[in-house]
Amino acid sequence: MRTQVVVIGGGPSGLLLSQLLHVHGIDSIVLERKTKDYVLGRIRAGVLEQGFVNLMEKAGVADRLHAEGFEHDGTLIAFDDDCFRIDFNAQTGTPVVIYGQTEVTRDLYEAREAAGGTLIFNTEDVTIHDADTDHPFVTYSVDGREQRIDADFVAGCDGFHGVSRQAIPLSVRREYEKVYPFGWLGILSETPPVHDELIYSSSRRGFALCSMRNENLSRYYIQCSLSDSPDDWTDSAFWAELKRRIPKTFADHLVTGPSIEKSIAPLRSFVTEPMQWGRLFLCGDAAHIVPPTGAKGLNTASSDVYYLHNALRDYYDHGSRDGIDAYSQNALARIWKAERFSWWFSSLMHRFPDQSEFDLKIQRAEIDFLRTNTAAQKAMAENYVGLPY
Amino acid sequence: MRTQVVVIGGGPSGLLLSQLLHVHGIDSIVLERKTKDYVLGRIRAGVLEQGFVNLMEKAGVADRLHAEGFEHDGTLIAFDDDCFRIDFNAQTGTPVVIYGQTEVTRDLYEAREAAGGTLIFNTEDVTIHDADTDHPFVTYSVDGREQRIDADFVAGCDGFHGVSRQAIPLSVRREYEKVYPFGWLGILSETPPVHDELIYSSSRRGFALCSMRNENLSRYYIQCSLSDSPDDWTDSAFWAELKRRIPKTFADHLVTGPSIEKSIAPLRSFVTEPMQWGRLFLCGDAAHIVPPTGAKGLNTASSDVYYLHNALRDYYDHGSRDGIDAYSQNALARIWKAERFSWWFSSLMHRFPDQSEFDLKIQRAEIDFLRTNTAAQKAMAENYVGLPY
Repeated sequence: MRTQVVVIGGGPSGLLLSQLLHVHGIDSIVLERKTKDYVLGRIRAGVLEQGFVNLMEKAGVADRLHAEGFEHDGTLIAFDDDCFRIDFNAQTGTPVVIYGQTEVTRDLYEAREAAGGTLIFNTEDVTIHDADTDHPFVTYSVDGREQRIDADFVAGCDGFHGVSRQAIPLSVRREYEKVYPFGWLGILSETPPVHDELIYSSSRRGFALCSMRNENLSRYYIQCSLSDSPDDWTDSAFWAELKRRIPKTFADHLVTGPSIEKSIAPLRSFVTEPMQWGRLFLCGDAAHIVPPTGAKGLNTASSDVYYLHNALRDYYDHGSRDGIDAYSQNALARIWKAERFSWWFSSLMHRFPDQSEFDLKIQRAEIDFLRTNTAAQKAMAENYVGLPY
Repeated sequence: MRTQVVVIGGGPSGLLLSQLLHVHGIDSIVLERKTKDYVLGRIRAGVLEQGFVNLMEKAGVADRLHAEGFEHDGTLIAFDDDCFRIDFNAQTGTPVVIYGQTEVTRDLYEAREAAGGTLIFNTEDVTIHDADTDHPFVTYSVDGREQRIDADFVAGCDGFHGVSRQAIPLSVRREYEKVYPFGWLGILSETPPVHDELIYSSSRRGFALCSMRNENLSRYYIQCSLSDSPDDWTDSAFWAELKRRIPKTFADHLVTGPSIEKSIAPLRSFVTEPMQWGRLFLCGDAAHIVPPTGAKGLNTASSDVYYLHNALRDYYDHGSRDGIDAYSQNALARIWKAERFSWWFSSLMHRFPDQSEFDLKIQRAEIDFLRTNTAAQKAMAENYVGLPY
């Protein structure tokens, strides 16, 4: 087989890239290691930057997002029983949109299928060859039969554990990482959210986040020990601990119910440099991970897709290599800003095992500064809704 | 002897408090452990917030400051060979004033002496008695003879190593501290400053600061190891290292010369709570220390003096205890903001021994964010010129 761009990974970044390339008349094939149902079964975040929404519009897949997504004009920050609001609209003129990553992925699958796009599932032993030449190709097998696709370019959208990043030789690759000494225990429950905006809550007992998917589907998280297992936490233990970590005014009105999903996620900051090697480009989690505190995971992936699809358009439409050659630099400049924000917001809101009393006081002073200083709120809001590309 | 307020410590905070009280008709006696010449021989910072200048005006001692001080409308931030400016005037409408702490102290001594204020030097064994009653008194000795002053209030302005903080029982006192794993090696030299504004420079070799007292008196600092001694550093070694840490465009034009003072200062963040016990009030370094990076040392002292002299005025003029009872809370609220800023700016600009490659990247990303984001510059500028009282 031959195509212009092989996209490795059928998650939202790979699908969005493939769909955007299609809109611009560029052919691609998407290889996914799992099944479509598996991909759609993953529970992920749901706070979309306007830049992501714009890309979905450009890809022609934003109708349901516009119909069912919720615009949030702000968010609440709580510290013990104190609470204040960051007003995204007042500070930036831009809201964020609440729409689950699963729904994004579903919409993209529908669009790719409606357009007759080639999506190949259950691919095993995916291997990238000759990425540092002008004639890269990818081999893989399905049901034990080896296949080969020749292409102009390879886009590695296969996540943190994928093969794409590993295809860049260690001699040219540098990795930066921070592992946080705690996890997030999250539950999904068919209950009305405790508030119509997100609540990021820093309490002496640890961080908590009140989030949602829609008006009858709530997503709550509490900071937990890395040695905890979801089985250690009954639903009632979770709800009791959540209530202790959010201001009383919300705890008193929290509607609880059985969890329909419960899991623990570790928190990690990770970046690999460069994000390009020859004709291989990394996108999204394949190149970088953020802790979820700033809701930047999917949004950083879309940032990469933005730069990459524009670079490929310039190449095919105008024969220009400028965008391609600058891809890693352009993508990384914005990624590091999102990494910084996610690190800062995580550091601000969590309890750390090695925090001294002084560190706690500084953390409290920083939240107080954010509460009282308009410029600090504006800087926070600009990051949260997404810095300019 | 009897007075209304005994001021322990004849440094700038004690003198400014005493002079402000005098202007408002409140009598005080200042006790200083050393001689006036010793106090005036201390080399300290020289960046004054407008709030400090306002207090000097209120105290009637701002004439020379206005005549000889330099207004700085901004400062430069450098990272390796990159450099950008934070524009205080554009961001806040307020400059800072460069005027050495030694000159401030000299002006205050002159004013206190001209007003016939009582200043007692070489006081030994200063002891605060009955601060938790309505009849506090202070004993001390000069030339071996014990003296006693009865007063309404005691102001502890005697610095980090003074006796005032220790007079608050440990059972009610809580201390917060961070010691930074490096020092500042500073020199004073009779050379023209390399630039007409301060340059805060973060380099891979460590932090450097280009500061000044006037157009022919420069003050330069480099981050150094805590195990270094000033004797380890010849002048030429200092200049060579400074040049390596500032952008080439400045290094090439740096005028060097013999140092007329050379010393190493450790960096510490420290706060004691509460800042009041009965009729004893702590002011300045007696209650809190900041690392010098944000130039907040003298300015935090003046913040305390602001709250305390207003509280004492309210007490004597209107019989109100409100200001006095709220002193610790009001003073600490602003102090913790300055502590946060000084910690943040120190963390941003220095190399730390335990910094990972990820930490370095985040530090760089934060400087890049400050370089490119107006809201972040505004938040920084508002802190640097001084948050509102």
